[in-house]
Amino acid sequence: MDIQEQKPFVIGLDLGATNSVFGIVDQRGQVLATNAIKTQAYKTVEDFVDAGVEAMKPIVAKVGGIGQIKAMGIGTPNGNFYKGTIEMAPNLSWGHDCVVPLAEMFSKRLEVPVGLTNDANAAAIGEMQYGVARGMKNFIMLTLGTGVGSGIVINGQVVYGSDGFAGELGHVTMVRGKEGRLCGCGRTGCLEAYCSATGVARTAREYLQSSDEPSELRNIIPEEITSLDVSIAAGKGDKLAKRVYEFTGEMLGAACADFASFSSPEAFVFFGGLTKAGDLLMKPIMESYAKHVFKIFKDKPKFLVSSLDDGAAAVLGASAIGWEL
Amino acid sequence: MDIQEQKPFVIGLDLGATNSVFGIVDQRGQVLATNAIKTQAYKTVEDFVDAGVEAMKPIVAKVGGIGQIKAMGIGTPNGNFYKGTIEMAPNLSWGHDCVVPLAEMFSKRLEVPVGLTNDANAAAIGEMQYGVARGMKNFIMLTLGTGVGSGIVINGQVVYGSDGFAGELGHVTMVRGKEGRLCGCGRTGCLEAYCSATGVARTAREYLQSSDEPSELRNIIPEEITSLDVSIAAGKGDKLAKRVYEFTGEMLGAACADFASFSSPEAFVFFGGLTKAGDLLMKPIMESYAKHVFKIFKDKPKFLVSSLDDGAAAVLGASAIGWEL
Repeated sequence: MDIQEQKPFVIGLDLGATNSVFGIVDQRGQVLATNAIKTQAYKTVEDFVDAGVEAMKPIVAKVGGIGQIKAMGIGTPNGNFYKGTIEMAPNLSWGHDCVVPLAEMFSKRLEVPVGLTNDANAAAIGEMQYGVARGMKNFIMLTLGTGVGSGIVINGQVVYGSDGFAGELGHVTMVRGKEGRLCGCGRTGCLEAYCSATGVARTAREYLQSSDEPSELRNIIPEEITSLDVSIAAGKGDKLAKRVYEFTGEMLGAACADFASFSSPEAFVFFGGLTKAGDLLMKPIMESYAKHVFKIFKDKPKFLVSSLDDGAAAVLGASAIGWEL
Repeated sequence: MDIQEQKPFVIGLDLGATNSVFGIVDQRGQVLATNAIKTQAYKTVEDFVDAGVEAMKPIVAKVGGIGQIKAMGIGTPNGNFYKGTIEMAPNLSWGHDCVVPLAEMFSKRLEVPVGLTNDANAAAIGEMQYGVARGMKNFIMLTLGTGVGSGIVINGQVVYGSDGFAGELGHVTMVRGKEGRLCGCGRTGCLEAYCSATGVARTAREYLQSSDEPSELRNIIPEEITSLDVSIAAGKGDKLAKRVYEFTGEMLGAACADFASFSSPEAFVFFGGLTKAGDLLMKPIMESYAKHVFKIFKDKPKFLVSSLDDGAAAVLGASAIGWEL
């Protein structure tokens, strides 16, 4: 037996725009220790890697040192699985407009193999190995956070496509032509422009502006309204806030209907901040899907909310990349 | 070595709404003999299978009898690869509103293994093994005929999804809301309603009706205009006819931009009657793709026209199913 295979732990790094969380994970998916650094507190990627290596030292020591670590897996925005790079990540100060060979940089420092993938793909892998998608061969994970990301699993494999960037379902066009909302990507009408946390807040502002309907959201300065405010108001029965979630769910359900025509998944798994709205969001998604979908896909997929908490799914998913190296 | 593996031929059946073509194919993809029957000249599927078995006898005899045949593969509308069935095929008189276990029926009669898949999937397999997609691991085949079909290949495998019906890209929604055209599937705004041969003819009729612009298409009774008439007129420089193809290509390119966000294919391969319009169609597709696509997928995929003639790709693709049994 290869000695390499006997090492009992991997490191998972959930690299987010705000925090970078390092976790030591065992073969049963237990996160034994974590440590975090602020992702953007560093001027260069070299400084970020230095700080990351420092942050890993105490948690690696806890499990017996680097000799116990098989590999490291990283989940990151704009991660390219094939190349181990972060490419043109608009939300990373040191990863903007450039290609960062992050896997190689960590690998040189730690002297273990390092793999990297897109954060939504990492979450999908986490869900497949440890969450509600356990045992599923075909599902689509939609991450509803600041943006809308996706991880697509077909025949038990994450879809990377010809270039490592497949699965950008936040950027399918839902509203064509001039009426489409401007998206962060510079195009208009993308799913992300409507169904991300920022999209939900924007819908709320539009609804407030276009009518005099009473709403407790009028107590908040419009620019400061968040999707959580909308969710709380909707939970209390605020009609305008409920309509915001109905609109968001309607659009997500219509998008899922198109996605079903592509890969006919066994389930859609939703993950991220917006899912905290629960049935306020999930019910309109399912109703809209039923209304819009091509009939052979009707009543087939499950609509599930991730069972892993935000941090765990991402760290576990990232660590799963490590097990496969 | 298994004796089964030494049998040098497979039978491919391209089962279309009009003709059913049986072909004997060798391991190099040579179609050695063919015979055809009219698909809908039979009242029941039992009669169809009887006629098929009779039609195969002379071509099987030519290559030395059924002992030389490894298996049979079938490409058919509404084919389910997992079950070997045709399900709810609206265009088949004996396959309408029912589930036909066609693979099993032929297998019992021929005493060889029989596999079956959707016709567009069969064409994609044919293209991957013998055509312009040779060696590609990730591509999307779009068949532009009476309808719009698709075969999606990811990691070198046809995508069947959780139920065997994945890859119905003719039924993604391109025009949402009330302005969407009624599609044959009963929904509105589907890609197929615009970009099939019938969709092109319909666009031409709409353009003719909504203006007095001169066009040689006005010499044809509107209801009798076909996509071929539009293609011929456009080829002669008829401006209205050219605009019809520009509109069709614009919509196909926008659809491909969304498909790229899904699986980031190495190529889009176009197949079927409409592709005979050549650059009249392909140029607007590529321009529209460049205009609409998320920037990380720009300038990446190739846009190719099938190199196999209509019949050959389908028979070869169907036969390829046979080799894998």
